[in-house]
Amino acid sequence: MLIDCAAYEHGRRLSNLSIDGISDYLGRPDSFVWVALKDATPEELEKMQEEFGLHELAVEDAHKGHQRPKIEEYGNSLFIVLHTIDLDGSELLSGEVAIFLSKDYVLTVRNRSRQGFIDVRARCEQEPEQLSQGPAFVLYALMDAVVDRYFPVFDALESELETIEEQIFTVGAQRATVERLYQLKRKATTLKHAVAPLLESVGRLHGGRVPLIFAGTQEYFRDVSDHLYRINTSIDAMRDTINTAIQVNLSMVTIDESEVNKRLAAWAAIFAVATAFAGIWGMNFEHMPELEWKYGYPTALLVLVVICGYLYYRFKKSGWL
Amino acid sequence: MLIDCAAYEHGRRLSNLSIDGISDYLGRPDSFVWVALKDATPEELEKMQEEFGLHELAVEDAHKGHQRPKIEEYGNSLFIVLHTIDLDGSELLSGEVAIFLSKDYVLTVRNRSRQGFIDVRARCEQEPEQLSQGPAFVLYALMDAVVDRYFPVFDALESELETIEEQIFTVGAQRATVERLYQLKRKATTLKHAVAPLLESVGRLHGGRVPLIFAGTQEYFRDVSDHLYRINTSIDAMRDTINTAIQVNLSMVTIDESEVNKRLAAWAAIFAVATAFAGIWGMNFEHMPELEWKYGYPTALLVLVVICGYLYYRFKKSGWL
Amino acid sequence: MLIDCAAYEHGRRLSNLSIDGISDYLGRPDSFVWVALKDATPEELEKMQEEFGLHELAVEDAHKGHQRPKIEEYGNSLFIVLHTIDLDGSELLSGEVAIFLSKDYVLTVRNRSRQGFIDVRARCEQEPEQLSQGPAFVLYALMDAVVDRYFPVFDALESELETIEEQIFTVGAQRATVERLYQLKRKATTLKHAVAPLLESVGRLHGGRVPLIFAGTQEYFRDVSDHLYRINTSIDAMRDTINTAIQVNLSMVTIDESEVNKRLAAWAAIFAVATAFAGIWGMNFEHMPELEWKYGYPTALLVLVVICGYLYYRFKKSGWL
Amino acid sequence: MLIDCAAYEHGRRLSNLSIDGISDYLGRPDSFVWVALKDATPEELEKMQEEFGLHELAVEDAHKGHQRPKIEEYGNSLFIVLHTIDLDGSELLSGEVAIFLSKDYVLTVRNRSRQGFIDVRARCEQEPEQLSQGPAFVLYALMDAVVDRYFPVFDALESELETIEEQIFTVGAQRATVERLYQLKRKATTLKHAVAPLLESVGRLHGGRVPLIFAGTQEYFRDVSDHLYRINTSIDAMRDTINTAIQVNLSMVTIDESEVNKRLAAWAAIFAVATAFAGIWGMNFEHMPELEWKYGYPTALLVLVVICGYLYYRFKKSGWL
Amino acid sequence: MLIDCAAYEHGRRLSNLSIDGISDYLGRPDSFVWVALKDATPEELEKMQEEFGLHELAVEDAHKGHQRPKIEEYGNSLFIVLHTIDLDGSELLSGEVAIFLSKDYVLTVRNRSRQGFIDVRARCEQEPEQLSQGPAFVLYALMDAVVDRYFPVFDALESELETIEEQIFTVGAQRATVERLYQLKRKATTLKHAVAPLLESVGRLHGGRVPLIFAGTQEYFRDVSDHLYRINTSIDAMRDTINTAIQVNLSMVTIDESEVNKRLAAWAAIFAVATAFAGIWGMNFEHMPELEWKYGYPTALLVLVVICGYLYYRFKKSGWL
Repeated sequence: MLIDCAAYEHGRRLSNLSIDGISDYLGRPDSFVWVALKDATPEELEKMQEEFGLHELAVEDAHKGHQRPKIEEYGNSLFIVLHTIDLDGSELLSGEVAIFLSKDYVLTVRNRSRQGFIDVRARCEQEPEQLSQGPAFVLYALMDAVVDRYFPVFDALESELETIEEQIFTVGAQRATVERLYQLKRKATTLKHAVAPLLESVGRLHGGRVPLIFAGTQEYFRDVSDHLYRINTSIDAMRDTINTAIQVNLSMVTIDESEVNKRLAAWAAIFAVATAFAGIWGMNFEHMPELEWKYGYPTALLVLVVICGYLYYRFKKSGWL
Repeated sequence: MLIDCAAYEHGRRLSNLSIDGISDYLGRPDSFVWVALKDATPEELEKMQEEFGLHELAVEDAHKGHQRPKIEEYGNSLFIVLHTIDLDGSELLSGEVAIFLSKDYVLTVRNRSRQGFIDVRARCEQEPEQLSQGPAFVLYALMDAVVDRYFPVFDALESELETIEEQIFTVGAQRATVERLYQLKRKATTLKHAVAPLLESVGRLHGGRVPLIFAGTQEYFRDVSDHLYRINTSIDAMRDTINTAIQVNLSMVTIDESEVNKRLAAWAAIFAVATAFAGIWGMNFEHMPELEWKYGYPTALLVLVVICGYLYYRFKKSGWL
Repeated sequence: MLIDCAAYEHGRRLSNLSIDGISDYLGRPDSFVWVALKDATPEELEKMQEEFGLHELAVEDAHKGHQRPKIEEYGNSLFIVLHTIDLDGSELLSGEVAIFLSKDYVLTVRNRSRQGFIDVRARCEQEPEQLSQGPAFVLYALMDAVVDRYFPVFDALESELETIEEQIFTVGAQRATVERLYQLKRKATTLKHAVAPLLESVGRLHGGRVPLIFAGTQEYFRDVSDHLYRINTSIDAMRDTINTAIQVNLSMVTIDESEVNKRLAAWAAIFAVATAFAGIWGMNFEHMPELEWKYGYPTALLVLVVICGYLYYRFKKSGWL
Repeated sequence: MLIDCAAYEHGRRLSNLSIDGISDYLGRPDSFVWVALKDATPEELEKMQEEFGLHELAVEDAHKGHQRPKIEEYGNSLFIVLHTIDLDGSELLSGEVAIFLSKDYVLTVRNRSRQGFIDVRARCEQEPEQLSQGPAFVLYALMDAVVDRYFPVFDALESELETIEEQIFTVGAQRATVERLYQLKRKATTLKHAVAPLLESVGRLHGGRVPLIFAGTQEYFRDVSDHLYRINTSIDAMRDTINTAIQVNLSMVTIDESEVNKRLAAWAAIFAVATAFAGIWGMNFEHMPELEWKYGYPTALLVLVVICGYLYYRFKKSGWL
Repeated sequence: MLIDCAAYEHGRRLSNLSIDGISDYLGRPDSFVWVALKDATPEELEKMQEEFGLHELAVEDAHKGHQRPKIEEYGNSLFIVLHTIDLDGSELLSGEVAIFLSKDYVLTVRNRSRQGFIDVRARCEQEPEQLSQGPAFVLYALMDAVVDRYFPVFDALESELETIEEQIFTVGAQRATVERLYQLKRKATTLKHAVAPLLESVGRLHGGRVPLIFAGTQEYFRDVSDHLYRINTSIDAMRDTINTAIQVNLSMVTIDESEVNKRLAAWAAIFAVATAFAGIWGMNFEHMPELEWKYGYPTALLVLVVICGYLYYRFKKSGWL
């Protein structure tokens, strides 16, 4: 589905274009075409391939989707894949944006992604000076938007981790804790898969030798790189923390069990003693003088209470009860 | 066993060849020979070595099999080993394809592999334009076919992992879960061993300095590289997830045990109390007034029921029962 | 908030400047301006951006904060971010210092940081010879101050680890131990995040090819690098030790549990035996000769005591009790 | 002890040499001397040092032994250390071979190694054409022999791992399983220490810039490298699998324990119920009408059997028994 | 404290020097000064700084101590820090040696180190030929001495590990085993911290581009490097083994616990059965024919013995007892 298609000259929007009008604007100095598609059909992609002369393998990747984030050069043009990550309740939704780029055009194809880029375009159009730097600036603006949206996602994971941490050191509820940790790690992995390959690729847009169209925008892409680096390090730290938390939770479970065992042992001992004594006075020997004694029964009860009470006190003191 | 042997010129199949006719077509411009063997005998390999002038060490590798995936240059020719991975029920079958390649010929030798390459040849022959790029394109087509078949295998492992994940957080059945996780990890390792060494080698076919025959096909091999990179990252993530799952499963087992212990403790306490009281009233003291009381017995029963009931209620409330 | 703003010539403080007076001193040979801000407002930053011609992205980073430690070149100027770490009781407080630097000026912007740099400035002013090396020396002095303050923080963590270690091998108190280990690891991670990215960046200030203003101060920055390297290695070792300690603590918990189980088993056996014998002599068979025997009861008690005593002795000897 | 000492010209054995005759053959074109020592005495080594002009440090290494596998250049000569690994029952025996090599000579010194190299020499002498490539080919032949002997050792470890794997998922025998896994890991580490450092060194014999005497034999050493790489990867995978197996085994032990606990809980419950009921009917209240009922006893027994049977059925159904 | 101070010419000791006489010998061709200090006071260091023109930062490092092992160039001079490790019973004592070095002098400053270097000096003086290579050879001799002393320390750790290994697979004593493993790992880490940073630095003394004074001694430093590499690899392997041992020990503890549980379950079952039967025959029903039977009691005892014996036999057979 075509979202928007416009030509820009010196950073200013000239006009809306029909797809067939695109070729008129290609190759003009200081101007470029910016086309946005959503969930493009094979026919739309084919049309675009024709207009812009896109490379067959890149178009196939954009069509099939499920690519890893990457930046590939095809001659003078680039093919970029980004992953968008959205929060849907506590689940992560992963989408893809494929971007075709040369000095003459930017084509974005968005798949399974909730995020639109209308606001990015609007903001760009408000800064014609910067937009006049051409498609490289558009790419920066798009990337910046995608990467900036990773941060709230990460923050959501971080705060989930903090909630779980509190649970870990509370008695009980470990079953749910383990599952939440496991699911959290899977989510962190999803985010990692969006960030890590991109981090590696973006480095090529601001290092020593960059494609010509990125000559004047290196500092912007270093900024993107920096954001990616930051979130990447944070995710790694989080994954490590989750591993530790799983370990620690296992320790807590074992400690819980140990305490339950101790309590069991203590009560079992108390009642076992009572039962054993009662059993002894329940024996049927004929000559058991205490049985005939008038105060035998209350004394026996007293003995039982004293012994059990003493055991209770001892166990209480040593922390078993 | 000889599967197919044909000469191609400008990407079009000329004729079926007998093995002895091969040498007539070697060295001709714009043409090459494509030979396919399956479970080749030493004699067949020797014959091929003679016809194509293959290097002794490469032939020995092809004959002995059990090589790791690799791409080796011998002067102007290449020797490539690929691993094919097939699903056989839930087991993985691993096979090998050895490929000898120069600008004049492609020779494939398939061992212990279910996958044939007849469909690859057929598809190539339908696109003479591309096939006219020579053996480099054939290698791409073969590699692409092998690598594309890794994806359904990986998907099968992924969906097995998902099944196991559900089991983990279900009570019971942990014994089977552990074993399945262990076997799954072994399978992931097998797949990893097919992918990882190849990933490293293929990089040499599309980087800065590539063998001459790959001059025009770098983008194809970058595509293969990209697929390998993607599946490699996914396998690594899966292996990491399996490790976490094993950890988590251990936690779940321990939690299960802890809950069993609690329940045991609770019931033991209830019955121990009943037994202790019954034991007391079963003592043979002569002077136990309650025994003679008319309503002694029902009252005793009531006391027992109340005490046990109260314990049951307390344990129920604290989640032990 | 403006803390201090002064011009220096040949390493000597000339005069306090008002912000508007800054531009008079820029570009003079052998002199530079040193401005210190704390929790700067957007207006202050904007003013500074104007005076010094700072890069928009750098100013944005300084304003938004939450950057990772880094050293970035913008043309002839540098933008540096450092993390300050302070101890607040047993918690770590993390602050940020952003430093803008060229051959003409040093501008420090301190956020959420308790540490001031007044003492750094004072010390610098006492050594005019060294201060005459210009902003590069000021940067060294600031970095040295920040990095030197990591050491007492690390020492505090180290001594906490030692306290925990003693707890681990003491019986009891494991619940608290696990939580402390977990929190300690998080703190070590915080410190790591201050140190590791900086270590990487500082290398660029004393390696083969450094920015021109650092030409004469490479040995100073190698010294900073060395300190960072040392603390980084120590943190890594500590994190590894914490992991081991968590493992080891789990073992200790399990051993504790095992010992509790043994003790439980032993006492249970002793009382079960007593109860079983008492039960037997409590049966109501008519013909039980020992019941009628005069010394039956004391003998029975003796038998019980002997059996239980023997069991106690055996369990004691085998370490179960 | 001198094993063999001979001169070769154009790949053919000329004559057996006495040690003093060695110097006559050094420096002749197309010929070299091949000396084999076993558990050499200091005097023999000193003699050799004199004859061949070996470097003092290399001779010291050969004498002291316990070197890591390595390839060191001393001017125009090389010093190579290989580890031989033999199976002795299920134990691994580790030996060392030190090789001194230049274009004029090969000197092998074998220590604590069962493997001889007589067969290597015999095979070399049968292929004079290849042997005429000089000491570089001899080195290849020796290395190939040593490395080829790693494979059966690895296979033995692999099949031991498979045996252990079966044990893991069998109930019982975990104590032995853990110890076997631990010992297996130690063996894998021993093999790893023979392979990994060599892998790194051999790369220098077939990469871009190799010592002159290896000019024509690069493909042979790439082959050795390839074998080393393969076994190295396999060992790494095995070590990872062993770690997983230890983890998994712990899970199995815990599951076993959990099942034992459940069974214990179930039987304890059944008998506790029986005992409690018997205890109640064993109380000495005067008014317990059921005691006087004629069919009281059989009914009581029936009640007990029914309750216990029902519990048994419930536990059986829920898998506790 | 000044230990020794002497001038050397052509490798021969000329005379003992007073500190003030040092400057007379600096700058002479073929001669150098070798000074040894122990626990130097700030005044001594200041004096040395003056005499040799040492760099301020290096002197500060030597004074403050607690440096990591390193090799730093200051213009034409070097500053080296080594860690000495001594065994003190089963504890490790860590000391530091700071070495200042140029083509004219060697200055060693030893702190908290038991090891002296008098024997190193004596051995050097006995080999004037080698000593005539100047300070570079002295550095080699010192490093060689320090590194050679790591090996007995490592061997002590290794043999401690072997003792612990035996304990692991013995029943009991796990508490001590865990603590010893933990302490052993800490010791291995200490040794690692002496070796690893040095390994990295020494590489710069024998690689492609070395400081001029090391031109003729590269092979010596490669030898040191080789020793460091060997011990470094061994420590890594040991640390990995310790981790595995901790894991394995946890498994053994759990297995022990499992066996204790089984035994507990078995005895509990046996006595519970006896108690239940005794309880039944202890009920007070009026019509219990077996109670009146003459042989009732012995038969009951027999029944109990048979049942308990059968259970004992079953448990024994299944390994629970």
